[in-house]
Amino acid sequence: MRGKFIVLEGLEGAGKTTAHQVILAQLEKAGKNVVQTREPGGTPLAEKLRHLIKHETEEAVSDKAELLMLYAARIQLVENVIKPALAEGKWVLGDRHDMSSQAYQGGGRQIDRHLLETLKETVLGNFEPDLTIYLDIDPAVGLARARGRGELDRIEQQSLDFFYRTRQRYLELTQNNEKAVIINAEQSIEQVAADIQQAVENFLKIAK
Amino acid sequence: MRGKFIVLEGLEGAGKTTAHQVILAQLEKAGKNVVQTREPGGTPLAEKLRHLIKHETEEAVSDKAELLMLYAARIQLVENVIKPALAEGKWVLGDRHDMSSQAYQGGGRQIDRHLLETLKETVLGNFEPDLTIYLDIDPAVGLARARGRGELDRIEQQSLDFFYRTRQRYLELTQNNEKAVIINAEQSIEQVAADIQQAVENFLKIAK
Repeated sequence: MRGKFIVLEGLEGAGKTTAHQVILAQLEKAGKNVVQTREPGGTPLAEKLRHLIKHETEEAVSDKAELLMLYAARIQLVENVIKPALAEGKWVLGDRHDMSSQAYQGGGRQIDRHLLETLKETVLGNFEPDLTIYLDIDPAVGLARARGRGELDRIEQQSLDFFYRTRQRYLELTQNNEKAVIINAEQSIEQVAADIQQAVENFLKIAK
Repeated sequence: MRGKFIVLEGLEGAGKTTAHQVILAQLEKAGKNVVQTREPGGTPLAEKLRHLIKHETEEAVSDKAELLMLYAARIQLVENVIKPALAEGKWVLGDRHDMSSQAYQGGGRQIDRHLLETLKETVLGNFEPDLTIYLDIDPAVGLARARGRGELDRIEQQSLDFFYRTRQRYLELTQNNEKAVIINAEQSIEQVAADIQQAVENFLKIAK
């Protein structure tokens, strides 16, 4: 039986790393063979692109160049890692996927919607996550948390407006989306974990 | 006065390097301040992408990932190098530009035309070379020449059919194109050089 693709989405400081561990433990407890991915990255070429996207300092990276590199990395990951794993019956737990590009590049950077739609359609076709868990947080709260962890990378060094636009697009994409669950990530760590576990448990029931 | 953008196009072994020197000497003799570019490449980020495109060996590079990296490199070059140079009145002599993607990725690799058109339109807008000099050669002849120079890179290691499709697309794009000149690159070096010089001379007359 084909595996399932679960993706974690959210702004910096929303708690994706902790949420990832919670879901991983839960899926493994349920007997799933789990492959973990992160985007951008997850294949040799995609990791090299991730480095260029996050740490290019010799030259200003245009918004569109960033978007194209993200999709180049994504197609490598989907074709060479995610689809083969799902076909083998493994479950894939992804730290970010296409919704990040829609939210950050489409919402945050306000890139032309036609380009985004064409990339999604021609690069991914109808491939999409079976479940997206979106950790919703006020950008001001999330960034304060992220700053506490140390230096922010190139993308994280954006104005607060950028992140409010990104959050707005995330909400548009997840509200009334039956394949997405919105988690209030401003709650205590324990409550966030409990809400995530409930969402995954509900999914495991219908995914059988 | 805005400078002009002249691009050399053609298959491997068509003689682009020699042609480049011929045109460069001619433009400088005509008093032009010439900026030389090559694609993919020509900026710090674009050169890193060039390396990934041409020499990635850890992982099979999907056709679409290759195309997206080419356009990421191109937008960096156009925005950060070519447009500023033209605005300063410099002339730009390019070793390949967008027509290479149309011919190699569109013709050779047979990538979806909608994706190619959207990329061209959203990434480049109406920006295009003022003159394209296409060196036309039978792929079998060109590849034999290129092989004589040493090892072929990842893109050059394609089947002959790939190159025949690429040449076909090049011809479609240059025939009846008043901003393009087709040079028969199977002639002697001297004759090819003479034909190129004639084309550039004609262009210099109207470009004044």
